[in-house]
Amino acid sequence: MTPTSGEGAEKMDAEDGVNCSDYEHDIENEDLWDGNEESGGYWSGIYDRNKAHTKPLLMKGTNTTSQIAIIGANLCPIESLDYEIFDNEILKNDWSSRKKVQIIHYVMLKWGFALLIGLGTGLVGFFNSFAVENIAGFKLFMTTSLMSKHRYLEAFLAYAGANMCLAAAAAALCAFIAPAAAGSGIPEVKAYLNGVDAQHILAPSTLFVKIFGSILGVSAGFVVGKEGPMVHTGACIASLLGQGGSRKYHLTCTWLRYFKNDRDRRDMITCGAAAGVAAAFRAPVGGVLFALEEAATWWRSALLWRTFFTTAVVAIVLRVAIQFCATGGKCGLFGEGGLIMYDVSSANITYSASGIFAVLLMGAIAGILGSIYNYLVDKVVRTYSIINGKGAFSKISLVVTIALLTSCCYYFLPWIAYCIPCPSNSTVICPSVDESGEYKNFQCPPGYYNDLASLFLNTNDDAIRNLFSPRIIKEFHITSLFIYFATIYCLGIITYGIAIPSGLFIPVILAGAAYGRLFGRLFETITKLDRGLFALLGAASFLGGTMRMTVSICVILLELTNDLLLLPLVMLVLLVSKTVADSFNKGVYDQILKIKGLPYLEAHAEPYMRNLVTRDVVSGPLITFSGIEKVRNILHALHTTGHNGFPVIDEPPFSDAPELCGLVLRSHLLVLLKEKIFSRDRGFANPVIFQRISTLDFGKAGSGKEIKLEDLDIQEEEIDMYVDLHPITNASPYTVVETMSLAKAAILFRQHGLRHMCVVPKSQGRPPVVGILTRHDFMPEHVLGLYPDIKPHKWQ
Amino acid sequence: MTPTSGEGAEKMDAEDGVNCSDYEHDIENEDLWDGNEESGGYWSGIYDRNKAHTKPLLMKGTNTTSQIAIIGANLCPIESLDYEIFDNEILKNDWSSRKKVQIIHYVMLKWGFALLIGLGTGLVGFFNSFAVENIAGFKLFMTTSLMSKHRYLEAFLAYAGANMCLAAAAAALCAFIAPAAAGSGIPEVKAYLNGVDAQHILAPSTLFVKIFGSILGVSAGFVVGKEGPMVHTGACIASLLGQGGSRKYHLTCTWLRYFKNDRDRRDMITCGAAAGVAAAFRAPVGGVLFALEEAATWWRSALLWRTFFTTAVVAIVLRVAIQFCATGGKCGLFGEGGLIMYDVSSANITYSASGIFAVLLMGAIAGILGSIYNYLVDKVVRTYSIINGKGAFSKISLVVTIALLTSCCYYFLPWIAYCIPCPSNSTVICPSVDESGEYKNFQCPPGYYNDLASLFLNTNDDAIRNLFSPRIIKEFHITSLFIYFATIYCLGIITYGIAIPSGLFIPVILAGAAYGRLFGRLFETITKLDRGLFALLGAASFLGGTMRMTVSICVILLELTNDLLLLPLVMLVLLVSKTVADSFNKGVYDQILKIKGLPYLEAHAEPYMRNLVTRDVVSGPLITFSGIEKVRNILHALHTTGHNGFPVIDEPPFSDAPELCGLVLRSHLLVLLKEKIFSRDRGFANPVIFQRISTLDFGKAGSGKEIKLEDLDIQEEEIDMYVDLHPITNASPYTVVETMSLAKAAILFRQHGLRHMCVVPKSQGRPPVVGILTRHDFMPEHVLGLYPDIKPHKWQ
Repeated sequence: MTPTSGEGAEKMDAEDGVNCSDYEHDIENEDLWDGNEESGGYWSGIYDRNKAHTKPLLMKGTNTTSQIAIIGANLCPIESLDYEIFDNEILKNDWSSRKKVQIIHYVMLKWGFALLIGLGTGLVGFFNSFAVENIAGFKLFMTTSLMSKHRYLEAFLAYAGANMCLAAAAAALCAFIAPAAAGSGIPEVKAYLNGVDAQHILAPSTLFVKIFGSILGVSAGFVVGKEGPMVHTGACIASLLGQGGSRKYHLTCTWLRYFKNDRDRRDMITCGAAAGVAAAFRAPVGGVLFALEEAATWWRSALLWRTFFTTAVVAIVLRVAIQFCATGGKCGLFGEGGLIMYDVSSANITYSASGIFAVLLMGAIAGILGSIYNYLVDKVVRTYSIINGKGAFSKISLVVTIALLTSCCYYFLPWIAYCIPCPSNSTVICPSVDESGEYKNFQCPPGYYNDLASLFLNTNDDAIRNLFSPRIIKEFHITSLFIYFATIYCLGIITYGIAIPSGLFIPVILAGAAYGRLFGRLFETITKLDRGLFALLGAASFLGGTMRMTVSICVILLELTNDLLLLPLVMLVLLVSKTVADSFNKGVYDQILKIKGLPYLEAHAEPYMRNLVTRDVVSGPLITFSGIEKVRNILHALHTTGHNGFPVIDEPPFSDAPELCGLVLRSHLLVLLKEKIFSRDRGFANPVIFQRISTLDFGKAGSGKEIKLEDLDIQEEEIDMYVDLHPITNASPYTVVETMSLAKAAILFRQHGLRHMCVVPKSQGRPPVVGILTRHDFMPEHVLGLYPDIKPHKWQ
Repeated sequence: MTPTSGEGAEKMDAEDGVNCSDYEHDIENEDLWDGNEESGGYWSGIYDRNKAHTKPLLMKGTNTTSQIAIIGANLCPIESLDYEIFDNEILKNDWSSRKKVQIIHYVMLKWGFALLIGLGTGLVGFFNSFAVENIAGFKLFMTTSLMSKHRYLEAFLAYAGANMCLAAAAAALCAFIAPAAAGSGIPEVKAYLNGVDAQHILAPSTLFVKIFGSILGVSAGFVVGKEGPMVHTGACIASLLGQGGSRKYHLTCTWLRYFKNDRDRRDMITCGAAAGVAAAFRAPVGGVLFALEEAATWWRSALLWRTFFTTAVVAIVLRVAIQFCATGGKCGLFGEGGLIMYDVSSANITYSASGIFAVLLMGAIAGILGSIYNYLVDKVVRTYSIINGKGAFSKISLVVTIALLTSCCYYFLPWIAYCIPCPSNSTVICPSVDESGEYKNFQCPPGYYNDLASLFLNTNDDAIRNLFSPRIIKEFHITSLFIYFATIYCLGIITYGIAIPSGLFIPVILAGAAYGRLFGRLFETITKLDRGLFALLGAASFLGGTMRMTVSICVILLELTNDLLLLPLVMLVLLVSKTVADSFNKGVYDQILKIKGLPYLEAHAEPYMRNLVTRDVVSGPLITFSGIEKVRNILHALHTTGHNGFPVIDEPPFSDAPELCGLVLRSHLLVLLKEKIFSRDRGFANPVIFQRISTLDFGKAGSGKEIKLEDLDIQEEEIDMYVDLHPITNASPYTVVETMSLAKAAILFRQHGLRHMCVVPKSQGRPPVVGILTRHDFMPEHVLGLYPDIKPHKWQ
């Protein structure tokens, strides 16, 4: 047991061909290695001492783009997902040995999971609405009753105090239990579906905080919605189901092993995201289109079908739950309004030239306002991320401050509004006495109502319903609408980025509806379109201007209003606002992705990539293995790098000349090392010894359950034994020639959901693989870092 | 001018490396060559004499799958489309020289074309309805008025005569002007978007016949619809716009050159297909989803947006046109019914367990009936294609026979129905006296109506509206519904495949609605669901059972009924019927694709392909060119093969060892040969001489406008000159290693819309490219032909 000296290890580098590095530098693994100096036995001891030598080697290959992203409000290491079908011998044998009954198991499970995702998300969606309606309803009821006794200061203190307590609770959940649950969650889900995995992004703790944090945050009266969090919640539920059970607690069966790969999980999470939107808006078709248009990077026909099934289940669950409450179930203050469903009359939609002109103008202005919104959200999130970086206390303080500010706006602004006499022919009670309603009495004398309070002192859902409402004529003063619009617009901007789960849809719809109704009031002389319809169009144009989605927004709004006759106008206004906004900046989710540092692969390659070839961005050094490799070399490579894929080269005497045999994954190597599939001779392994490992071991482990390097217990005599890598080598890796245009390679990489792409030489007589491309090599930051002279073009 | 002897030409083969062949064997080119023996000057003379030598060479490389497909009712040679970005020097220079203003031109044109496609398709859709309503309305009016005078025989003769004349006219248009216009057109559009190009599929003559043939066919009372033809019409309009103008008639401008490639045309045709569905059903969102789910093979977010715009334009055009007719425009018999828009009351939708059970049962039975429908359509189309193959006269006779049969069924079956007394509280006139209406008097005494005649003696749209109608209680006898269902089911099967433009949606909706209403009647004791709702669910389940689409059918039906509350039930029934039907056979469009012999690439690779590698299906011989190649060799290769892509190999002294330089296309080679970009020395060409050619020349020419081999006028002294192929070589062809799994290669091929894929050797010291894969090499027929021992698995 003589420990090899540092020098020896270095010599080994030179001798045994561990000569360069693929550079998907994995910070997580490095941290583990650093943190486990005392444990880990023989090998970690050696490599600790080698650190001084190995560090520079590592750094040389390090990418210029960060491998850390802001998830929620915290920094978090990220990894790539691998959607490639891994085509090695063991998995292929397993696959071809599957009988028809197992295929049926697989298909049944897929659909069963879709059902469970739908059920789970639907129930959470209902619970969310139920809780918010009750908590916020109680809060508003308390405030209203204090005000009706003219105890205005107490009313404010109760209102602001309740808001701040709820906000602090939400922030504490986020800060202490799951920082990844902060924010909308849609960018994170989008990144996951693009192939970026960050720790905790879909963990059970995140799910817990997302549900309860969202309820508390929305109840606290923030200008935030529940849709982003619902999407994240749906994705978390899907991810939990897709873990394939727990072998540790014997909570698994052989059926579940089919789901132990990134591909099947991706499909399930796509279903989850669709289910989230469906649950938030009760819009099943809209949910599917949202998943297709915004969330998913990979899509196929079969998925459309499964996603649709999931959202149908959500719709049915919600309908049953609402029927239960409506027919005497004990749902407290939960009314029909819990899930927003508006009723915009379309009876008098006539197309006049002046009306269409007004709509076009509204769309154009909304496009500009939307892009300004995105710009300001970007700045605010950047500022907040500095504050949030200072620890849990700063996070909570920030949240409470914003809660206080919001409470002040909501409570004090209605005081400057005029009191309006109640309409005589109203079908609802005016002024209303309960916690919601269209006519808030506020400080007004009996028989009068305060229009601004009717908007501010309500839940966001009720405010939207008021704004969309066609029933009340002239019920909102122009000044009130303007004040409300300006307040919501500003509060929406400064609220996003604080450490609570916060959706962006509702703020944008609120601001948009107020803007649209205001616009309708200003242009009422030239158009006969209904004011509620203007509010709807305003919401559509604002959504188009910030989120830049089209078909899904359109369908979600149609499903909310249940009137397809509105379609042409909604389309028109979306088209205009998106086009105008697109000429200024990108959609809000794309901006957040960028701020967070998530390496998102765009659908289109950047124009300058057409003038580069893959060789130009490959940065060495590259580590390769022989088809039959020494344990020592493998351990060395695993210790000194964080790479996840290593090319395998067959060399004489196993082939005539060096040739690329394929690619092995770190996780598969660890399985071989753990199970000690070694042999003393340098030769092909006996297939019998591979029967020691189950194909289950090669499945992707759940987060944190993978085999770790320091768990290995390699004895000294085993170090010079050989491992036959052929059975675990992916014999069909995607390869590109080094002269392939980088743009084409980027498209190929993205379309196939790859993690590694081998670059092969064009001319003969060189090593059979010259480099490996990973996600980071296609990032504009990396490419432009290598070639600072390139001026990226802004146009498509 | 000594003609080279056959032996000389053969020797050249051996000497100059024209040693094998890529085998996308193009029958069209071969035919041209055969037919032009007297023309074509010097070279065709030589190669005529060489035919005996070259034929076997050709045949060796011939694929076992056919390169001819049935388009419409005729045989037609097919070619692949090339959606790859062709990355050669000339096009790259052209691309990078584009200024911002040109990019703006391009973007504006894209959107301008989308607008024009929407306008054109919308207007055609309106014109179609307008014409059908007037022609069929006049015919029915004539019949009804003769019957009211009790001149029953004359009424029949008038009815059947009109039908047969209209049918004969439609068949004559199809048979003599554009055989490609027969049938639905959706399979052809689907194949085109998958990358299969057949002559005339989208030609102007096809467009003309599709519009007028569809009007005549629908007016003739056939059980056919206009939606398939509308999809084809939309695609034709898009294709015409995308031709890039005509240089011959100076009807082009430099702007249009950006569209001279398959990629942009593909996008436009996708928009056209969506516009077609939108126009047929007035369902803009449904149109987009149809294009996404059924028609398109390649999709991207930007396309969603553009497609949506196109369908919005269609919706607006239709709305304006209908408003014009409604407000006093002279539209003759055109009523609100021209574009189907139903009104199903959903007031009493309550979910009871027995109701849901009935719906589930209905879905399951519809799935079985749907798969039987597909099976029988398959058999009938195969039989008809033999009859149609015998010439124009047989085609027309078949059409007239079916027209007579349909007329007999429609006219005589109502005689066996009971007369039902008119409901006293009806809001519409009963019995109706005009050409449409819910209550047909037929042979009944005054005050009574014939329920079967109300279905049969109406346009298909009106019959569907009657079936969906909730207004009339118990208006259809169970026996009448059964007779109607059975008749339509059988007529629908025997009508598809005759030589007229014929959509499949309406027959299936008709049969499904009758089935649903019948089912509702049979189960009325156990469920309270409305009968009109049952008809809708029946239509949904039949559509699911035959076409196997999901989301698009769902959305189309919702847009037709304008009631989103039906969604969960429609989803449920679709899910059941599709699942049941999928376990028997494939969707009807997939079956038709197969019958027609269109080489459609499926989204999933067949399971057995995972056990094969690309090397296993590559069949030689392969023709390659040197980077700087003799004119003689190029001409020889072009003459003796029909291949469209040739690998270019750089050899010493231009490189150290032979290396793959890229791929050249036949069409680009022809440009060089036509413009005589030759040089006497074997060396890199002076860039100046390439300025003789415009990049416009490299654009994809419209059908029939490409340069032909016999148009070349190569002099004898030019034959031994050299051509520098580098500037026209695609330097980034997609390559796969010969040991790549065939399944992965197939996915790669399809996802990138390739026409050629180079197979490179794994080991060194061999030629740098060992074969080329084309679409036909991935066809199951080809693979199973090579390996007859493989048993294809049926499961996914």
